[in-house]
Amino acid sequence: MLSGKHLIDGAWVEGGKTFQTVSPVTGDVLQAAVFDADKATVARAAEAAERAFAAYSATSVAVRAAFLRQIADEIEARGADLTEVAGKETALPEMRLNGERGRTTGQLRLFADWIEEGGCFDARIDRAMPDRQPLPRPDVRLVLKAIGPVGVFGASNFPLAFSTAGGDTASALAAGCPVVVKGHPAHAGTAEIVAEAIRVAIKKTGMPKGAFGLVQGASIESGSALVTHPLIKAVGFTGSLRGGRALFDLAVSRPEPIPFYGELGSINPTFLMPAALASRGEEIAGGWAQSLTMGVGQFCTNPGLVIGLDGPDLDAFIARSCEALGDVPAQTMLTAGIAKAYATAIAEREAQGNVSVKMKADAAGACDAAPIVFEVTSDVWLENPALHDEVFGPAAVVVRCQSAEDVLKVAEALEGQLTATFMMDDGDLEAVTPLLPVVERKAGRLIRNNFPTGVEVCHAMMHGGPYPASTDVRSTSVGTKAIERFLRPVSYQNFHQDMLPDALKDGASTPQLDNGKRS
Amino acid sequence: MLSGKHLIDGAWVEGGKTFQTVSPVTGDVLQAAVFDADKATVARAAEAAERAFAAYSATSVAVRAAFLRQIADEIEARGADLTEVAGKETALPEMRLNGERGRTTGQLRLFADWIEEGGCFDARIDRAMPDRQPLPRPDVRLVLKAIGPVGVFGASNFPLAFSTAGGDTASALAAGCPVVVKGHPAHAGTAEIVAEAIRVAIKKTGMPKGAFGLVQGASIESGSALVTHPLIKAVGFTGSLRGGRALFDLAVSRPEPIPFYGELGSINPTFLMPAALASRGEEIAGGWAQSLTMGVGQFCTNPGLVIGLDGPDLDAFIARSCEALGDVPAQTMLTAGIAKAYATAIAEREAQGNVSVKMKADAAGACDAAPIVFEVTSDVWLENPALHDEVFGPAAVVVRCQSAEDVLKVAEALEGQLTATFMMDDGDLEAVTPLLPVVERKAGRLIRNNFPTGVEVCHAMMHGGPYPASTDVRSTSVGTKAIERFLRPVSYQNFHQDMLPDALKDGASTPQLDNGKRS
Repeated sequence: MLSGKHLIDGAWVEGGKTFQTVSPVTGDVLQAAVFDADKATVARAAEAAERAFAAYSATSVAVRAAFLRQIADEIEARGADLTEVAGKETALPEMRLNGERGRTTGQLRLFADWIEEGGCFDARIDRAMPDRQPLPRPDVRLVLKAIGPVGVFGASNFPLAFSTAGGDTASALAAGCPVVVKGHPAHAGTAEIVAEAIRVAIKKTGMPKGAFGLVQGASIESGSALVTHPLIKAVGFTGSLRGGRALFDLAVSRPEPIPFYGELGSINPTFLMPAALASRGEEIAGGWAQSLTMGVGQFCTNPGLVIGLDGPDLDAFIARSCEALGDVPAQTMLTAGIAKAYATAIAEREAQGNVSVKMKADAAGACDAAPIVFEVTSDVWLENPALHDEVFGPAAVVVRCQSAEDVLKVAEALEGQLTATFMMDDGDLEAVTPLLPVVERKAGRLIRNNFPTGVEVCHAMMHGGPYPASTDVRSTSVGTKAIERFLRPVSYQNFHQDMLPDALKDGASTPQLDNGKRS
Repeated sequence: MLSGKHLIDGAWVEGGKTFQTVSPVTGDVLQAAVFDADKATVARAAEAAERAFAAYSATSVAVRAAFLRQIADEIEARGADLTEVAGKETALPEMRLNGERGRTTGQLRLFADWIEEGGCFDARIDRAMPDRQPLPRPDVRLVLKAIGPVGVFGASNFPLAFSTAGGDTASALAAGCPVVVKGHPAHAGTAEIVAEAIRVAIKKTGMPKGAFGLVQGASIESGSALVTHPLIKAVGFTGSLRGGRALFDLAVSRPEPIPFYGELGSINPTFLMPAALASRGEEIAGGWAQSLTMGVGQFCTNPGLVIGLDGPDLDAFIARSCEALGDVPAQTMLTAGIAKAYATAIAEREAQGNVSVKMKADAAGACDAAPIVFEVTSDVWLENPALHDEVFGPAAVVVRCQSAEDVLKVAEALEGQLTATFMMDDGDLEAVTPLLPVVERKAGRLIRNNFPTGVEVCHAMMHGGPYPASTDVRSTSVGTKAIERFLRPVSYQNFHQDMLPDALKDGASTPQLDNGKRS
C-alpha cells in the first residue's frame, strides 16, 4: 500500500537511494525501501513549488481557506489508516494519535477561518495628502504577502501535528506559500498518507500541483539540500539543538540568507513557590509526574527542571513525585536512536558527583525509557552547565535552593526556554514579583499553576522563545500568529485601485489601518 | 565644544584609541581626537544598557512616549548647532539637514503617538473555557515585549534620520529597548550633539541612564564588539553590502544568534512603460535626473537602473535625461572614501566593452561626484552581474530591451531591491500585469509614477526588501511598523490580572484581540 516515494508536482516519484523504516517496539522492518531524496530530487521539489508560487500566492483567502479545510477533511477520511501506520512507526498509543489528528485538522480549520478574517495580513493605508507642505504625501499602502516556497521538516515527536500537514505547513499554506516537506525518516509511511491527503485536496480544490510536495529522506543530504536550495525562502523545523543549529547555520550562510524557524530544545523550568509547596505540594507532585512522563517525556514542553527551596515541603514533593513516577511503566520511545540517546544522557548524569538519583525506574526493552529524577543543590547546578541541557525523555532535575537569592540566581542562569512555570498561591505573589521579569526574558510562555505540556492552538499562543528554545525569538510555531512567519511586507505607492491586492482596496471587507485608524 | 567621548550610563567618558574627523570639502581636520571604542568600552555600554533594561522596558507607553517627545524637543533646541556641525562633517546643504532634522523629530513624535495607540504590541486574549471537552482551555494571553538591549549603527548618508536618534533608535526606544549606538565615524560631532540631546531627555523624564548610550568608533573592532556582545539582543544597520554582510555573519554565528536588520544595497529599477514613455518621456526624464542626483545620489532609494524598450521614445528619454544631468554641477560626497569608491566603480564600468557612456559630467574636487549614465542592451546586462551591483552615487545604467520578453527577463534577473518603479499610463496596464508579480517578489516597495527617493515616514511604509536590499525581508527600517523589529511575543497562561502586563488586562484601553474578535 505504501510506495516510499516522493510527492513532487502532484505525482508520486522515485529519487535517490532508499532506507528502511523499523518498528521501535520490535525492530521489525516496516517499509523495506523508502526513497532518500538526493540533491537533485530536492531541487525538483523546490522547482515545482516555485512554479506553483505565482498562482498559489495569488489565490484569494476564501480559496485558500477552502483548500485548508479540504486537507482537514481528507486527513479525517484517512484517520484509521493514519493511526494504524503512525502507531506502528512511533509506538504512540491510539488515543494520543487520534487526539493529535484532531489537533492537526483543528489547526487547519482555525487557520482557514483566520485568513478569511484577514487581519493577519496587516493591511495599512496612508492616503495621499496632495496639498501637504513642504511636500505632498503620496498614497502608500502595505500588506503582508507570501514570502516564497517554504521548506518544512517533519518532527520525530509529532507525526501529525508538527509534521507533513502540521503547524508549519498549515501556516505556510495559509500565508500563500507552497510547501516542500522533508518527511521525518521514522514515520515515512505516516508522511505518505498525509501527503496523499493533501494531493487529493489540491486536486479537488483546483490548487496548483506544486503547492505541496513531500520529499522523503533519512540522509543529511536531503535536509541540507532543502535548506540551501535558492528557491526555498524560509524553513520551519522542530527537532534537536544540534541538528537544528546545523541547519540554521546553513540557512544564514546562503548567498541569500533566509529565515529559519527552528524549535529546538527546552528544559521548561518549574518554580515551586513556598506557599504553594506548603499548601498543595503533593497535589502538584502528582500532576508534575504525569506531565513529565506524558508521551514518554518526548514533548518539547516537558517540565525537566524543578526549582524549590530546601525544606520538608520540598522533601515531601520529591517523595510524592518519585512515588507517582514509580507507578509509571517504562514505555517505548519514538526510535531506537532516541532511546539510546536518553540512556546515554542519564548515564552521564548518574556518573557525575554531587548529583543524587532520587528515583530511577527500570526500562524493559531496548527502545524503552523509564523516568528518572536527579537532585542537585543550586550551587552544583550553577557550576555545571551540562545539567542545563535538555534530556529528551522522562528525566528531571530538581534544584534545591537555600534562599530566594539562590532561586533568582538559577533563574538568571537559565538559557532560553519555551515555557517557565510558577506553582504559586496568592501568598507567593511577593516572592514571584522579583522573579517574573527575569524569567520573562528567558521564556516564550509563562504559566501559573498549569503544567507546560499541552500547547493550546489559539491566537494568543507563543510556542518558541529565546535561543536555544528557538532560533528566532520573534516567532511562534503554534497558533494563528505562526502565519506571520511566512509573510513579508510589501508597500504599494500611488497605485490604481485595480492594481492593488484585494486587502488594500478601498472598502475591503477585511481589517485595515486607514490613516492610522483601525477599521 | 565637542569632546569626542562616548556616552555611557549617562556620563561622557573616554575609552580606546582616537581617530580624526575631516571635512570632505577641504580635507581639514574637524576633530583631532575622537575616541575609538575598543571591546572593553563597548562592553561597558552594553552592560549599562542591560542594567537599564528592567526599568526601561517596564515603563508605561505614556512614559516612553513622553521620553521620545522630549528627545525631539531637545534635538530641535540644538537645531542650529546640528546643522552647522553636520554640514561641516557631511557636506550636506543646510536645507537638506534642516529637513532631515524635521524628519527625525517627526519620526520620534509619530512613534510616541503610535505606542500610545498600542496596537503595535498585538495584545491577544484567549479566555479560559473550563468546561471544554475533552480538555478545558486555559486563559492564554500574548503581548509583544521588548527584545533586549539593541545595537544601532549610524549611517553615513543620513547623519540625523538614520543615525544616533534615527529610525532604528526611535523604534527600539519606542519598543522599550535600551539602545547603544555606534556612531558613524564621518559625523562623530553630530552624533555627540544628538546623544547629548538624548542624555538631557533621559534626565528630564527620569529614564534610567543606560537607556541610551553612544560609542564612537572608526575601527572594525568597535562595530564587531557591539554585534557580538552577548547582552545585545538585536542590531539595526544601514550601510554597504560588504560591511553589512560581515556584521550579519557575526550576528548569526554568535552562540545565541540575534536578529540583524541590515539595510544594504539597492539599484531601484525604474520600468519605463511604452505608453508613458511615448506620452511624457521627457517629463519623466527631468524628474528622474533630479531623483538620481538628489543628495549626490547618496540615497539608498537612488534610481540607478532604468529599463525601457528600444526605439525613438527611449532615445528621447535618454537625450533629455543627459541634458538635464549635464545641468547638475558636481557635488561633494559624504566622505573621501565614498568619492573614491564612486570614481573606481564608474571607471570599472567605463572600461567594460559593450557598455556605452551616454553622458559624463566632470568632477572638480577630489571628493566630488558628477553624474554618469551608462547604456547597455538587455543581453549585455543579463550576462554581466557586475552591472547589477549598486554604485553609491549619481550613476545610472539604462537597459535597452528589444521586447516585452526582454523586459521580463531583466525583471526576473533582478536581485532584491528596496523599491521598483513603474512609469506607466493607463494604456500600459496590460504590459505591467505580467511584470508586477515578478517585480513584487524582488522589492519591498512598488511605485507607480513617483520617484523612489523620498521615503515617507508613515504606517504603510516598507523600507527594506529581499536580500541584498536587506538582511531581513520581514522587516522595515522606516515607519511605525519598524517598532516590531525590536519586540518578541510572550504568552501568559492562567495569570492573575495583577500579574499581567497592562495591555493584557481585562478592559485595557488599547486594542486587544479578544477570543478572536478585535476590540
